Amino acid sequence: MVYAVIMAGGKGTRFWPVSTPERPKQLLRLFDERTMIEQTVHRLEPFIPADQQFIVTIEEQIEEFARQVPDLDRNSFITEPFARNTGPAIGLSAVHLLKKDPDAIMVVLPADHRIEDKEAFQATLRTAVGFVEESDGIVTIGIRPTRPETGYGYIQYERDDFRPGVHRVVTFAEKPNRETAIRFIETGEFLWNSGMFIWSAQRILSEIEEHTPELYAALMEISDALDTDAPKERVVRAYQSIKPISIDYGVMEKTRNAYVVPAGFGWSDIGSWEEVYQMDTKDTSGNVRQGPVVILDTQNSYVVSRTELPLAVIGMKNVVVVHTEEGTLVCPRDRLQDVREAAELVQKRKH
Amino acid sequence: MVYAVIMAGGKGTRFWPVSTPERPKQLLRLFDERTMIEQTVHRLEPFIPADQQFIVTIEEQIEEFARQVPDLDRNSFITEPFARNTGPAIGLSAVHLLKKDPDAIMVVLPADHRIEDKEAFQATLRTAVGFVEESDGIVTIGIRPTRPETGYGYIQYERDDFRPGVHRVVTFAEKPNRETAIRFIETGEFLWNSGMFIWSAQRILSEIEEHTPELYAALMEISDALDTDAPKERVVRAYQSIKPISIDYGVMEKTRNAYVVPAGFGWSDIGSWEEVYQMDTKDTSGNVRQGPVVILDTQNSYVVSRTELPLAVIGMKNVVVVHTEEGTLVCPRDRLQDVREAAELVQKRKH
Repeated sequence: MVYAVIMAGGKGTRFWPVSTPERPKQLLRLFDERTMIEQTVHRLEPFIPADQQFIVTIEEQIEEFARQVPDLDRNSFITEPFARNTGPAIGLSAVHLLKKDPDAIMVVLPADHRIEDKEAFQATLRTAVGFVEESDGIVTIGIRPTRPETGYGYIQYERDDFRPGVHRVVTFAEKPNRETAIRFIETGEFLWNSGMFIWSAQRILSEIEEHTPELYAALMEISDALDTDAPKERVVRAYQSIKPISIDYGVMEKTRNAYVVPAGFGWSDIGSWEEVYQMDTKDTSGNVRQGPVVILDTQNSYVVSRTELPLAVIGMKNVVVVHTEEGTLVCPRDRLQDVREAAELVQKRKH
Repeated sequence: MVYAVIMAGGKGTRFWPVSTPERPKQLLRLFDERTMIEQTVHRLEPFIPADQQFIVTIEEQIEEFARQVPDLDRNSFITEPFARNTGPAIGLSAVHLLKKDPDAIMVVLPADHRIEDKEAFQATLRTAVGFVEESDGIVTIGIRPTRPETGYGYIQYERDDFRPGVHRVVTFAEKPNRETAIRFIETGEFLWNSGMFIWSAQRILSEIEEHTPELYAALMEISDALDTDAPKERVVRAYQSIKPISIDYGVMEKTRNAYVVPAGFGWSDIGSWEEVYQMDTKDTSGNVRQGPVVILDTQNSYVVSRTELPLAVIGMKNVVVVHTEEGTLVCPRDRLQDVREAAELVQKRKH
């Protein structure tokens, strides 16, 4: 059977001061009355119904998830004791799924993407799942690049179909510099790596065994522990021994069985305030303004107060100013990659 | 006898969000543990002792003054029902003083200047008061200009002494544009108009009678009302009839009896956050930082949070970012003249 595994362990630093460790991006209501995680859950139905969906997150976020998204069944959570990047999170999910269903096929999805066309999205997933059922391949969803983005990994692929809608992957390329990104796009042979993957639980564990045996050993220890009455302590101990590793670095860049299905749907990674600014409604000066804000001679800026307190911005261009009950951020739109560092410094200061 | 009349009716817009209508600049603790008004009061002693000092302010600020500066005698206040610029405030003060002392000499001082050398300041005042006692002239204190400032009025004066330390005024010039200001400074014949004045109460009322007879009539109505048991309603009514007018425009630019004493002390008008930034302690990047702030790659900026909330500023140059319990301001240092307008818009939004 097909199961969704929604990766929702983000730390909420890129959207500070709206997101925080206690209220990460996946729990924000961006662009919709529903949280990002709810949008992700509903986008999969009816192809993958709610009882075949699992949310992978870290222990300390469980409470907040349950509070903010009360619809979700508590049994739908796969809990990591602490975050160890995507490799261990995916491995742990595969271990859990195999206990339920030895033939489980996993659709791995980040919880923080924006995808508007649900039908096209499900059609792409059907193509990928159909191919996995037939071939037991390792499949990723690729996005046709629209700009020489340096914040994403790229996938080089064979232009000719291997099966209808499915292509062989030539190589995975890490985040390129700008010149390299321009060259990638000019060749027409590269797609963005979306972080969405489709494979059987058996197969991904075999790949982990082959390419990152240390992680595999820890996962087997966890698998054994889950069969006992009180697995928690052993799971935590096994997790402590795991080194953080991304699934891209741990498996995708090494496997010889990777395939890519180019996305047939519009996609945005909501990676920073820039994407939120781009998608929001602007006034005639190109400003997004929300809450009690006063703006003088300011252009192309995102000015939002989420409290009752007035926020006055004078003589600025291309900046993000956000005030919430957690704090205030002032940052040029072309420096938003540094918000993560600032948010981490704010956290450090607190403790 | 000599009396100080401290003008303290400012509306607190230029230092928003630290100052507000309820807590104007004169009640802020800038550069000192004492408020600006306390600094002004203490700077006059012993030349003008506390019981010869009066504070002119508007009705709605009295409570806050009494709360923040409990040392001040309630009888030291001269209250305007509402603000009508410096002409009426000074006229009202003259009327009050004449009831106490027909020979009263007034030293009129703004409450928001920064003057460090108290001895030199008092020496300058003694020169001016001595001259007024001898001549009954209209005297202003002039500041030797250090830059082609366009935010001040200028005084053209005769370079030769009229009396030791006292010069005849040739003309008062309104705030010039930059080219004119540069020319003024090059001639060496111009001083800044400090807004500090010395004259007898009798004499300033005669000047008001001659140059702004409407204001004089209202002041005489108030003088009569003050002799009754319940003057308040008549004072309010008389004040309502008064048109706002500055003493510079109403008297100084018209009188033929103006003299200037060049200041023998260092002086700063604390007119905007720029002066506060200039005087505060800076880190090696030229930033003033106070409170729970996180700063990344930011230079020559004033970054202050006066609450517990973190304030993160990334990639900025020459900006002022101030967060208080009243709100948040983001403004380039060369646009601080617009803070007043933003603060007024914030007030308007509130009501």
